[in-house]
Amino acid sequence: MQRTLKPFSFELLAGDPGCGARRGRMITRRGVIETPVFMPVGTQATVKGMLPEALDEIGAQIILGNTYHLYLRPGHELIARLGGLHDFMNWSGPILTDSGGFQVFSLGELRKISEEGVAFQSHLDGSRHLLTPESSIAIQEALGADIIMAFDECIPHPAEREYVVDSTARSGRWARRCRQARRPDDGAALFGIVQGGMYRDLRRQSAEELREIGFEGYALGGLSVGESTELMYEVMDYSLPLLPEDAPRYVMGVGTPENLVEGIARGVDMFDCVMPTRNARNGVLFTSSGKLSIKQARYREDESPIDPRCDCYVCRHYSRAYLRHLFRANEILSSVLNTHHNLHYYLNLMAAARVAIEQGSFTVFRRDFYAQREQTVPA
Amino acid sequence: MQRTLKPFSFELLAGDPGCGARRGRMITRRGVIETPVFMPVGTQATVKGMLPEALDEIGAQIILGNTYHLYLRPGHELIARLGGLHDFMNWSGPILTDSGGFQVFSLGELRKISEEGVAFQSHLDGSRHLLTPESSIAIQEALGADIIMAFDECIPHPAEREYVVDSTARSGRWARRCRQARRPDDGAALFGIVQGGMYRDLRRQSAEELREIGFEGYALGGLSVGESTELMYEVMDYSLPLLPEDAPRYVMGVGTPENLVEGIARGVDMFDCVMPTRNARNGVLFTSSGKLSIKQARYREDESPIDPRCDCYVCRHYSRAYLRHLFRANEILSSVLNTHHNLHYYLNLMAAARVAIEQGSFTVFRRDFYAQREQTVPA
Ligand SMILES: [Zn+2]
Ligand SMILES: [Zn+2]
Repeated sequence: MQRTLKPFSFELLAGDPGCGARRGRMITRRGVIETPVFMPVGTQATVKGMLPEALDEIGAQIILGNTYHLYLRPGHELIARLGGLHDFMNWSGPILTDSGGFQVFSLGELRKISEEGVAFQSHLDGSRHLLTPESSIAIQEALGADIIMAFDECIPHPAEREYVVDSTARSGRWARRCRQARRPDDGAALFGIVQGGMYRDLRRQSAEELREIGFEGYALGGLSVGESTELMYEVMDYSLPLLPEDAPRYVMGVGTPENLVEGIARGVDMFDCVMPTRNARNGVLFTSSGKLSIKQARYREDESPIDPRCDCYVCRHYSRAYLRHLFRANEILSSVLNTHHNLHYYLNLMAAARVAIEQGSFTVFRRDFYAQREQTVPA
Repeated sequence: MQRTLKPFSFELLAGDPGCGARRGRMITRRGVIETPVFMPVGTQATVKGMLPEALDEIGAQIILGNTYHLYLRPGHELIARLGGLHDFMNWSGPILTDSGGFQVFSLGELRKISEEGVAFQSHLDGSRHLLTPESSIAIQEALGADIIMAFDECIPHPAEREYVVDSTARSGRWARRCRQARRPDDGAALFGIVQGGMYRDLRRQSAEELREIGFEGYALGGLSVGESTELMYEVMDYSLPLLPEDAPRYVMGVGTPENLVEGIARGVDMFDCVMPTRNARNGVLFTSSGKLSIKQARYREDESPIDPRCDCYVCRHYSRAYLRHLFRANEILSSVLNTHHNLHYYLNLMAAARVAIEQGSFTVFRRDFYAQREQTVPA
């Protein structure tokens, strides 16, 4: 009964014959999302430097909002009174919100974990707050997100097995409370998050518990937390098959373009990462042949675009020399243009990957991707 | 002969019966400019926070570039090698460059004036440079500006009469050197700048000397330098009639919306000012009923747009509450959206003034302008 109220669905359209890559389609109450998909991060009710129209232009299908930041400022209740996050920030497409757990656990000394939840002090003004599975869900529902995430602990790396056992078990209990806390009339999809650190058996236990509870989608949490790339891929390798075939799979906070290609090859449907936006503000730009740092003197009189293979607005109109000038002059447009290109690079990479999977040629796509960077395909 | 090579022209289309307001049309080699016009300031080869497409959208007809800044970084020779300022910054409309004098004279201890020009140290790295009438013109021509300004001294206020006499005489000699320094094959228009401080007879001498030399347009310099608004209007009142009727009149670095309306009423055709862009970044927004500071707590949950009478992109899509949030969160989009609205306000004010002059109703327009702000029309 509850399920029929929810318009959320996920359909697998194609699988690549040479690897685990899958081409899917998610339907949310605010629109269709073709997968694999990368979600630009809009921490404080804005994807830094990007107008919503620019996000549309580069093909953003869904963006991510941060519960922790929006809860503290301007406050979810204020956003709810103003009609929800979509109206507030002028973005009518789907929004996924994280649970706030990641940021709260990152506060270190400023937070204290109990079975009930996490007590923490605001990084803005030191004020005291308690975030629980129930309040996290209530906040995400108030924001009006279309996909909401269970409240969990993102376990750091390295971590003692004993700590991972306890934390993963608690995240499991919290996941159950999140499922129960949902407003039955809310149309958002709820995703569970597999933890278990870098321990294969604990990942299995976590995945089984979440499947038993039942979610519309499943995420792998606790990756890209300082482990080696090889270990990240290894955890993906053994964790992704533990998840239901017919639900979307989301690897949180990942990653580099290489990570995305490897994730897709292993059957990941959704990604998010601050890397394209944050790097852009630091002048680090992604291209088909690798990264470049626009502040370097070698670009002083370089009339070529960031990436001759890129057809984004920035590469059509601006030279590396101009972008270097803007960066050195600390101009707002530096962040705006760099972010536009980097996000376009990420979204275009995903779009090309989707086509490759449809054509059953993702293996070739992956080989070409590395060849253009003069890299070899990881084992 | 030289004159026929230049496509620059200015035509008076209408005059207001109730005041000195004039409606004109300038033709430059890169397009038509309807006057009175406000020119957004693009100091470092970018109007801070504005894409060229956004400038088009709000009806910017011409923008201003700063010779001092572009000379130091990235360098006019580099810009010239890359095809000129227009290509460099992706703006195909007309550009006016200042002479660099204003910035150089603002350096205080870091500069030394001689008959030859001004020796100064860069505010960026302390390197030593000499700017002369000849080099200022050469730099502006290398940038590819469509309207270039004579090199002069912007006299501070207050200033002793003796200093103003000497400085104005030197600026006159420099104006002559600028006229002679022009490349005969360059299609830009050269404007002279009337100085003379707040001394009526010195303004007259300066204007007469410039008319004798002959320029495509005439500016009033040395205003908005700390004098009272009344004094500024008084100088305009006695200086503008000294200028040729059939050439454009430009009051440099002015000013508030009120200053623009008063300037127009006195027959000014061109304005520039950093106020709309700089204020935007500080959260100060212009509206038809006056200024507002978006950071104020009163706008916390204010769903209304910045200005209910404004139809700009920002006012159509964003609430004061959202803009307050962006400002407090120090988001890039805060500067982007605030700048868009403020420049739209300025350009829209000018567009409405042009219509009013065409209809012979500028006196009514001016009265309404003040009435909406609950102000009275200045004497
Ligand atoms: Zn690009
Ligand atoms: Zn507006």
